[in-house]
Amino acid sequence: MSKNQILKVLHEKKGEYIPLEKLASEAEMSSEQVLDEIEWLRKDDYIIEHSSEHGYRLIKVPNRLLPYEIQRDLQTTYMGKEIHYYKEVDSTNEVAKKLAEEGAPEGTIVIAESQSSGKGRLGKKWISPSGGVWMSIILRPDIPPHEAPRLTLVTGVAVAETLSKECRLDVGIKWPNDILIGNKKVCGILTEAVTDRNLDFVIVGIGIDLNVDLESFPPELREGATSLKRELDRDIPGVKLVQNFLLDFEKLYNEFKAGNFPEILAEWRKLSKTIGRQVEIHKRGRVVIGEAIGINKDGILILEMEDGNLRKIMSGECLHRNQEY
Amino acid sequence: MSKNQILKVLHEKKGEYIPLEKLASEAEMSSEQVLDEIEWLRKDDYIIEHSSEHGYRLIKVPNRLLPYEIQRDLQTTYMGKEIHYYKEVDSTNEVAKKLAEEGAPEGTIVIAESQSSGKGRLGKKWISPSGGVWMSIILRPDIPPHEAPRLTLVTGVAVAETLSKECRLDVGIKWPNDILIGNKKVCGILTEAVTDRNLDFVIVGIGIDLNVDLESFPPELREGATSLKRELDRDIPGVKLVQNFLLDFEKLYNEFKAGNFPEILAEWRKLSKTIGRQVEIHKRGRVVIGEAIGINKDGILILEMEDGNLRKIMSGECLHRNQEY
Repeated sequence: MSKNQILKVLHEKKGEYIPLEKLASEAEMSSEQVLDEIEWLRKDDYIIEHSSEHGYRLIKVPNRLLPYEIQRDLQTTYMGKEIHYYKEVDSTNEVAKKLAEEGAPEGTIVIAESQSSGKGRLGKKWISPSGGVWMSIILRPDIPPHEAPRLTLVTGVAVAETLSKECRLDVGIKWPNDILIGNKKVCGILTEAVTDRNLDFVIVGIGIDLNVDLESFPPELREGATSLKRELDRDIPGVKLVQNFLLDFEKLYNEFKAGNFPEILAEWRKLSKTIGRQVEIHKRGRVVIGEAIGINKDGILILEMEDGNLRKIMSGECLHRNQEY
Repeated sequence: MSKNQILKVLHEKKGEYIPLEKLASEAEMSSEQVLDEIEWLRKDDYIIEHSSEHGYRLIKVPNRLLPYEIQRDLQTTYMGKEIHYYKEVDSTNEVAKKLAEEGAPEGTIVIAESQSSGKGRLGKKWISPSGGVWMSIILRPDIPPHEAPRLTLVTGVAVAETLSKECRLDVGIKWPNDILIGNKKVCGILTEAVTDRNLDFVIVGIGIDLNVDLESFPPELREGATSLKRELDRDIPGVKLVQNFLLDFEKLYNEFKAGNFPEILAEWRKLSKTIGRQVEIHKRGRVVIGEAIGINKDGILILEMEDGNLRKIMSGECLHRNQEY
């Protein structure tokens, strides 16, 4: 809170010197407290110059996902109003689950600069080096447990919309929940519902390869992956992207809660890069090949096999094959 | 041909008087021929004024689908380069079939101001009063007969695109081949393939309720139908619309022939108002109810029934039910 006050004053006069006494009075703190906070901000990579004559001035804000930066100018009503930030954590989903169990409100987010044990779908590890956005959101929707997978679709649409606005590239969704640029993965989503007869809460985990250096990925993952930095050939301000996403997501999640899921599903279908493709579904060592012709409202993929039979695919690893019409 | 020449000269100086001798020399005809042609044009509702002192001037072009008007400024390479026009005909599809059998080239169109026996799908009559666009196109694609239904999808996308550009309203496609504005039908498509082991030719019939007066429809059809005139509250220039459609259609049909059907199908899915809806399929007195979750590449609709089973719907009358999520 105190950091917010100091930062607010520093940001308002960014580049200008502010005398210590003025900083203290505007932030309603003692001079000693101000000096402590400035030390903390410098440890967070803020560059704050000091002149014995003129005072302090903010020179540079770090390109990190610091909560007080995200919350400055955040336009949402409840998404991200409570942020738990970690420089490194085992898994943001695990932390969020714990917070949710302790009663954290809907819209609370957990965000980390890197994860040591990031979780992917199907029990896989999710590589989470620094430069990415690794974030989990606590949701408490009033829906039956079997409808929780719909939140994966809602989240996919929100991420795709945010990224489309950011990069104006060919952003789309690979079933069930990978966001692609072209045919390369730039974001994954892991939705975990905690339920005990009723749905207690849902954790939506989002991993975006923002300014990630692809060389930090294992070689076998590199070819199918990309990052926004790689696509745009520049560093992307993460704070702005997170703010935009939280706003897009809150809007869509409100639509979802208002019963407008069919419209969101229609948008998912428009963004889908899987429907209409020949796909291979890998699951527990078995492979199913067919043409993806649609998804139903629970996010189940419908395949048409070579013999014309239809098959429902609940889950699995989906590979897009080359077009074969 | 001669009409085209006279019209070209009259159009170039629309509103200005042109002496008879000048008309004759520029159109490379005798004065007698010019007078005959002017008589014919007046019978087609052109308003051409005569002044014994100054000659002839074109005042007004009729809002009719006259071939020499369509072909002026037509930007296509082969679509509509040969037009067979009728003030009234039994069925443009029937005429086109006959012309195709006699060897008419690809892109030949038959167009009528009204049809006395317009054909709809499933053997139904298609109401075709004056004010509409009733048109059939001869195509000779090099595809196996079972792929001919794809041309219905291609045509649907082209019509939807043309109408969207024209009216900027909520244009979409109801499976299999109705073009809707909002939830009202504004256009139907009837594709007929003539095949004898190989595909000889395909007739694509298109009926657009352009400036149609809905009161000329039987009462039971009125509620579900609309016209562009009704939606926009003004008369729509039919010639321009047909020109735009022929250009959009030629482009898309060329894409189809170049093997880019998957992209067109993706566009169809985006335009679909059926996918994601609860629908009733009526066929031969039986009704199937389910959720439309996709179409395959042959345009077959996939329904998910209440018990979770999937079902392929080849054809039938499709009714959209209200959303029931």
